[in-house]
Amino acid sequence: SEPFMLITGPCQLESLDHARMMAERIAAACAPTGTRFVFKASYDKANRSSLSGTRGLGMEKGLEILGKIKAEFGCPVLTDVHETGHCAPAAEVCDILQIPAFLSRQTDLLLAAGETGAVINIKKGQFLAPWDMPNVAAKVASTGNEKILLCERGTSFGYNTLVTDFRGLPQMEATGYPVVFDATHSVQQPGGLGGSSGGQREFAPVLARAACSVGVSALFIETHQDPDNAPSDGPNMIPIERMEALIGDLRRFDDLRKGR
Amino acid sequence: SEPFMLITGPCQLESLDHARMMAERIAAACAPTGTRFVFKASYDKANRSSLSGTRGLGMEKGLEILGKIKAEFGCPVLTDVHETGHCAPAAEVCDILQIPAFLSRQTDLLLAAGETGAVINIKKGQFLAPWDMPNVAAKVASTGNEKILLCERGTSFGYNTLVTDFRGLPQMEATGYPVVFDATHSVQQPGGLGGSSGGQREFAPVLARAACSVGVSALFIETHQDPDNAPSDGPNMIPIERMEALIGDLRRFDDLRKGR
Amino acid sequence: SEPFMLITGPCQLESLDHARMMAERIAAACAPTGTRFVFKASYDKANRSSLSGTRGLGMEKGLEILGKIKAEFGCPVLTDVHETGHCAPAAEVCDILQIPAFLSRQTDLLLAAGETGAVINIKKGQFLAPWDMPNVAAKVASTGNEKILLCERGTSFGYNTLVTDFRGLPQMEATGYPVVFDATHSVQQPGGLGGSSGGQREFAPVLARAACSVGVSALFIETHQDPDNAPSDGPNMIPIERMEALIGDLRRFDDLRKGR
Amino acid sequence: SEPFMLITGPCQLESLDHARMMAERIAAACAPTGTRFVFKASYDKANRSSLSGTRGLGMEKGLEILGKIKAEFGCPVLTDVHETGHCAPAAEVCDILQIPAFLSRQTDLLLAAGETGAVINIKKGQFLAPWDMPNVAAKVASTGNEKILLCERGTSFGYNTLVTDFRGLPQMEATGYPVVFDATHSVQQPGGLGGSSGGQREFAPVLARAACSVGVSALFIETHQDPDNAPSDGPNMIPIERMEALIGDLRRFDDLRKGR
Repeated sequence: SEPFMLITGPCQLESLDHARMMAERIAAACAPTGTRFVFKASYDKANRSSLSGTRGLGMEKGLEILGKIKAEFGCPVLTDVHETGHCAPAAEVCDILQIPAFLSRQTDLLLAAGETGAVINIKKGQFLAPWDMPNVAAKVASTGNEKILLCERGTSFGYNTLVTDFRGLPQMEATGYPVVFDATHSVQQPGGLGGSSGGQREFAPVLARAACSVGVSALFIETHQDPDNAPSDGPNMIPIERMEALIGDLRRFDDLRKGR
Repeated sequence: SEPFMLITGPCQLESLDHARMMAERIAAACAPTGTRFVFKASYDKANRSSLSGTRGLGMEKGLEILGKIKAEFGCPVLTDVHETGHCAPAAEVCDILQIPAFLSRQTDLLLAAGETGAVINIKKGQFLAPWDMPNVAAKVASTGNEKILLCERGTSFGYNTLVTDFRGLPQMEATGYPVVFDATHSVQQPGGLGGSSGGQREFAPVLARAACSVGVSALFIETHQDPDNAPSDGPNMIPIERMEALIGDLRRFDDLRKGR
Repeated sequence: SEPFMLITGPCQLESLDHARMMAERIAAACAPTGTRFVFKASYDKANRSSLSGTRGLGMEKGLEILGKIKAEFGCPVLTDVHETGHCAPAAEVCDILQIPAFLSRQTDLLLAAGETGAVINIKKGQFLAPWDMPNVAAKVASTGNEKILLCERGTSFGYNTLVTDFRGLPQMEATGYPVVFDATHSVQQPGGLGGSSGGQREFAPVLARAACSVGVSALFIETHQDPDNAPSDGPNMIPIERMEALIGDLRRFDDLRKGR
Repeated sequence: SEPFMLITGPCQLESLDHARMMAERIAAACAPTGTRFVFKASYDKANRSSLSGTRGLGMEKGLEILGKIKAEFGCPVLTDVHETGHCAPAAEVCDILQIPAFLSRQTDLLLAAGETGAVINIKKGQFLAPWDMPNVAAKVASTGNEKILLCERGTSFGYNTLVTDFRGLPQMEATGYPVVFDATHSVQQPGGLGGSSGGQREFAPVLARAACSVGVSALFIETHQDPDNAPSDGPNMIPIERMEALIGDLRRFDDLRKGR
């Protein structure tokens, strides 16, 4: 019954200066409501729609930046991992390792992530049912690491479209693991722009509000100072200047849901 | 920004005594929050999964009962219509005529309903997109009747399953017509029990809460004193003894959403 | 193990002269392979996407034309019915009455159609599973009329899109009723053009070939001399000048499947 | 216009003796029709539904067995790869490297596989549209390796179910790359048995026949001498004793489609 934790940040790391600027603005957006945030950014976009999409700064440089953000802002940091060999170094810096949705059935990655002892945020594959997730979580838990988060981010619905099935939130919560709702990827339109994914940014706050009312432990909302020119996921990120108001709105629904 | 109107009642009319008992208990469940309700019941279940499903009392007897409920309880009444010829007689008694989802593309039925001048609640077909509904509404509006409600009740998602796409609520609201969320049919599992439809009653309050937070003008929630033995839609109806608490819970989210 | 029967014709009746011209060209296209055809045309398009879509000639005029086609060409004729009251008059002229997919759960229509004693072609609703169809067929069979055809025409797959699940053909055949594959509606994109449905005419022959190889008793293929200017379903109809070659191609797969 | 190539074998390697026995029986099943086959088996099932599923023999042992099968039977061999580091060693033995469907968007794996110069069989992700595949293939082609196969294996359709959209075959063929149809994974029911995937073995021949008639360059059909006791994918594999008849049947449709 704690207020939601907010996992937020730009989709991908651009530079230390950019990460610092984003973290500052995020901290400012969270302050009025006292919202705890985890700074999220990717050092490698390993599964872009097409080869022309920007990949990112790479692991070494990326982890260095995340480490500095963590030290300077005192916030936990999260990044996603795509190869077993990345889990250990990423966990030296990051508090939370994230398993990408496409990789949510890769046993070795789940085991390697689990073995680091970090918190593991598992995104539910777009091709999985909510009731498939206990088997997925059990792979991580088999390492003795029970610090697992299960994250809803949309389910395949025809071509180039995702739909959020809100029945999945209580179904996943029944595992006993905290549930995260990823509001910005849930409005992605995978491959919808031909060489990249489209998105419906305008519906992210709508779905986030629904999630708060259904009940979640954490929200995942990507943000950027200039989404339309961001190197990835621009069509679904929330402009940073709207985050404070959005967080405030969502907190009211979260507070009501949790009886505060 | 009015509190939601509640369309509620048993799925099908069973007898005058039963309707009266249900209306009394509904009125009692609504009283503490001052929730306005519309009494809903069907006189004919015209599209049961199989022939062995109970059809109902028929139009003449059914409208007589609805007329009495309306007179005794002073509440508006709603019924669904399946044939053009039923619209005029149903509208003599009912304040709202409902177009079933399967029939939401039947031009003649939409026109005949519209011509009665009654309020028309159009259920979105399970096979339609939210953006298909303006064309549907325009058929009713062409009769000069703009008293139109657009009702979300789930979209086909694989076989025997529906999913609620909450992006559809603001998309339908953009038409300017009030939007209704049907919480009990949205958790139906069409044909899921072989000779009849299954349902996931436990998720109706979850989806209703999400809908209130997203924003709706009305909720549609079927209820019964003994759902497991009801002649139709038992697996998804809410037991009447839980309605007062459910309404209270939903009103808090609705109030928050509407700034009351 | 008879060669497939071909249900074909323009989507809607335009005039006696047009129907005659189409029937002549269809007969010519079928002659080289000795393919038996049923002339299909609708006198009323009762569920257009929007009100601006052409409705058709109406029942009386339409049935008169279908009667003349039947007499002049010696072929069976098929039309679709949308109201219980239309079944008896339609059956006086038509050999086959067709239940539209959207109406495939309407009990009264299925009963009224069955009671005429005509062959009943039931289109599987876009919202139904193959295994839901035995309950649908049983409604017709309850009238003592077992002359039932079950017709696959695509299943809802996300928004504005249909997909053909070819597992459904043998699943429906297991009922013992002959199975029809509707190649031109299966490539419809419902509502895909805003005010009307789109279609992917180029895939109709592909899916029809697949259906012949899986095994069907009949094919349903709409055709027109000028699909792009047809009053309805133009985007998915096959130009009449391509029908002879298409039938020839499909007959080869049908012959192989049936061991001829 | 060559007859289809057949990619076949047990889902996972069990032992050298088992692989040898399977290869012998496959060769015997292919001989009457002169069907060229590629021996397929996995040395590691890296994405089982649950941790309790058997993983396999591991890369080193697995590649050794595949090398022996290739030498003894003179057939090309295929295996799937899950990590970039596996591509080079696997390509020393295997003629074809296969990218699993869940990994079809992982840029590094596609690049590493492409760089080996082996033929790359890319399974289309269950979450991708046919028109997303040119971007996927371009990642491999960017390495200068144009020996690409695109493989259909079903698309997410609701929960725990796949559907085959046969429009996807010609859409993928339009890329210019040969198209493969995977008949046994297309009838998988992912996660359908709780801790493992279910399957509908009986529909694999139906869909394979449809694919041959639509037109494919290769078929992928897993087989086993005792599917019900196989360590993985038993519910959808074809018993080896049925393969000769199945190949014969499919060749007739393939021959007809290709004008032989």
